Formats: sequence, structure tokens, C-alpha cells
Amino acid sequence: MKRRLLLVSNSTLHGGGYLDHCHAHISTFFGNLKRVLFVPYALHDRDAYANMARTKFNSLGYELDSIHDAADPREAVRTAEAIFIGGGNTFRLLKCLYDNQLVADIRRRVLEDGVPYMGSSAGTNVSTVSISTTNDMPILCPPSFSAIGLVPFNINPHYLDHDPRSTHMGESREQRILQYHEEADTPPVLALREGCLLLVEGNKATLLGCTNARLFTRDKPTVEYNTGSDLSFLLTDER
Amino acid sequence: MKRRLLLVSNSTLHGGGYLDHCHAHISTFFGNLKRVLFVPYALHDRDAYANMARTKFNSLGYELDSIHDAADPREAVRTAEAIFIGGGNTFRLLKCLYDNQLVADIRRRVLEDGVPYMGSSAGTNVSTVSISTTNDMPILCPPSFSAIGLVPFNINPHYLDHDPRSTHMGESREQRILQYHEEADTPPVLALREGCLLLVEGNKATLLGCTNARLFTRDKPTVEYNTGSDLSFLLTDER
Repeated sequence: MKRRLLLVSNSTLHGGGYLDHCHAHISTFFGNLKRVLFVPYALHDRDAYANMARTKFNSLGYELDSIHDAADPREAVRTAEAIFIGGGNTFRLLKCLYDNQLVADIRRRVLEDGVPYMGSSAGTNVSTVSISTTNDMPILCPPSFSAIGLVPFNINPHYLDHDPRSTHMGESREQRILQYHEEADTPPVLALREGCLLLVEGNKATLLGCTNARLFTRDKPTVEYNTGSDLSFLLTDER
Repeated sequence: MKRRLLLVSNSTLHGGGYLDHCHAHISTFFGNLKRVLFVPYALHDRDAYANMARTKFNSLGYELDSIHDAADPREAVRTAEAIFIGGGNTFRLLKCLYDNQLVADIRRRVLEDGVPYMGSSAGTNVSTVSISTTNDMPILCPPSFSAIGLVPFNINPHYLDHDPRSTHMGESREQRILQYHEEADTPPVLALREGCLLLVEGNKATLLGCTNARLFTRDKPTVEYNTGSDLSFLLTDER
């Protein structure tokens, strides 16, 4: 399988600028290619979002085309050299991907043609089995929670450990993911703390970044993985 | 309109037991009636949930029947003297209400027959226009985000003010609600901090409890309301 993915937990790390914490990984990942197709659908102001992403990608030596400027979004995906889906609201993003009939096209381009795919936050959520482990508010209703399905598991980006000093009684992130696994036939959930990213090349998956991740699997104990860990076993759907 | 609603932000307040912080309001609200129909659909273990709710309601002098024990849930709603929908996961709850064809029945019983309705957390979310301002993880996909519609606005329960010391880069609750209002035709969102509740009697709405609330309205400044405030204006859909 030609699949190449760079799945980032968060676009901005505290104290840094947009994508600063992972720009070395972005350069290595996209290598010598020229142009990246950007998908800004997760934020309301697409022009401003595309400009911010363009500034960052230009500084790394890449041209950036935003899909919202394309006359035909499907054609833009069909001819893309690389794809980057940015963060924002996951429901808005997935609805817009469905509205533009892009879900299957992106899947095919990435899995069959080997087009490199980078996602950040919501862009990472939509690359997985479903958006059922997003943290976002359901401000719009997509026709399905099924997502692009580039990997056979789910991701929870911006994973946050419970603060034992907190007096807030809403569910912790861990409790929410465990509630997900109370439902039948739910895939593993890789919880990426802010600063963490996952590199997938074919059937090899590696945890990168400056923080660690937790893996939640239905009916199994939760496991902590350090940066650098080989998580390739997640790519074989054993359920 | 006969409508009577007690909409609670959270079932448990830090340092207290289940529904302790609002039990005086519950007694006043249900008054001399005998039996309350409990809806435990938001949590996975319905027996345990019903037992917990029954213990609490018995201590307040009410019998509690759980709808998951009823042979015919629709008949249970049709004959209910009062309804209490408990918290948990809002998506799971709304899906189960739709699966059992209860959404319209509950609306009719409350708005036409004047059956008192109490909701807590997820049970408060489903009483509003839609579940689009829940904080919960979308672990299941209901056929629609439209909810029971007992009031013409949305509620965000467990509202949490942004902690300026936080280094977490995920969206604040305020940012998420403002993203909701970027979308067209979105109703006001009453953000109930933990400890806060809303009493609705006919066309009168009053904020109760030990904390205050914030009202987010599309294209208008956000307004803070103290406990005791008359929020009846929210019941006239002026949009």
C-alpha cells in the first residue's frame, strides 16, 4: 500500500506559532514536491485560513492551493500532488467534504495513488474510521460520522489528561473515550496529546513529536506509548 | 401554554452527591405528584442508573419508574405523570429517543398535556431545539440533531469559563459556541455553569441555583445573567 500520512494532534502548541512545533516533520514528509492542496473547510473564514496556511507552507518552500478557490473541488483532488486538511470544527469539515463529494475521492487518491496526506486536529479526525472521537461541538450535522478511513482506527486529538485538582464535573476525556468503547464494534482510539503526531508510511506507523500518546482499545487495558514507538500493529485491523 | 420544565446543568456538583445541589428545587417542582418516569438512555448501565435515580427520588418522596423496564416505552410516556431524563452521553440519548419513537410523544405530553419535565445535563440538551451545543463525544449517530424542542433556544450545560492559565490549545467553550453562531439561523445558547438551573413555567423562565449563566446570541454581545434573573424573553422566538 502506497499510503503516506502525517497526522498531527494540534496545529499550534502553547508558546509557538502555527505548525511551528512540527515544521521539520512537514518538510521531511512532503520532501521535494512542489504544491500542496489545502482544505480549509473546518473554519468559517476560508480566505483568512488559506492565507495563514499559505504563509507557513511558502516559508517551508511549498506552493499552497486552497480547494475553496478551485472551480471544481473534485478535479482539484484528482490532480493534487499532496493534500493537507487543516483543523477547526470536525462536523463542519466532514459535512463540507460530503457536500462536495470528496470523501471517496480523497480516500482513493491517498490509498491507491499514494498522494501524501497531512491532517491537523479536525483534519486528523476525518482521516480515520469516523469522527466519533472528536472533541468538537456538533454545530452542523454531516450525513454520516463515517470518515475518510485512511487508517483502521480512530484518533482523539488534543488529548488531555484529567486534572485531579479540577472541580468541574463534566466527563474527562478518558471517560468520554471509555463511553465510546461501551458501544459494540468500536475501533481502537489513539489519543494524541498536544505536541504528538503519527507518521504512517505504507504499513508502518511511528509516533513522533514531543509528547506521548495513549491507546484505548475496547475490553483491553489502556496503554501509554512514548514518542518514537512503532505502532504499525494498529494498521492491521484485527478486530 | 401548560409547559413546566426544570432544566439542570449538571447532576452532581463538586463535593456533593447525586442531585443534592438541586433537591429543594426538585421537591418544589414536582410538588405533590406521586410517580416520575425516568429515562436512563444516556448511560450504558441502565439498571444501575435507574437504581441511583430511584434512591434519590424515593428520598424526596416520589416513586420512580424507569422507561427501560417498561414493556412499551411509548405507552409509558403516554401515561407518565412526570418525566425526568438523566445525563450521560447526549448522542446516545437522542438516538435512543428516536429509535423508540419518543421525541414527538414527549413534546406533545409536555407542551399539550402539561406533564412536568426535568432534565439534567444531556437530559437538558435534548429538551432544547437541538443537541448542537452539547459537550459530549459523538459516540453514536442519531438520525438528526433536532431535539425535543420544549424551548426555542439551545442550552450548553456544564458551561466552563476559560482558564487563562491553561496551556491547552483546544478551543474554549466560548469559542465553540461562537463557532456555532457562525452558522446561519442558529438560536440563542444559554450557557449554564455547573450549579445553575432554569425553571420554565408556561411563558415564564427563571434562572435558579448557586451560579450564574451566560447568554450567547448570534450577532449580539454575550450577556451575563445572575441567578434569579427573569429570562422569559427567551421563550418568545424573536429570530
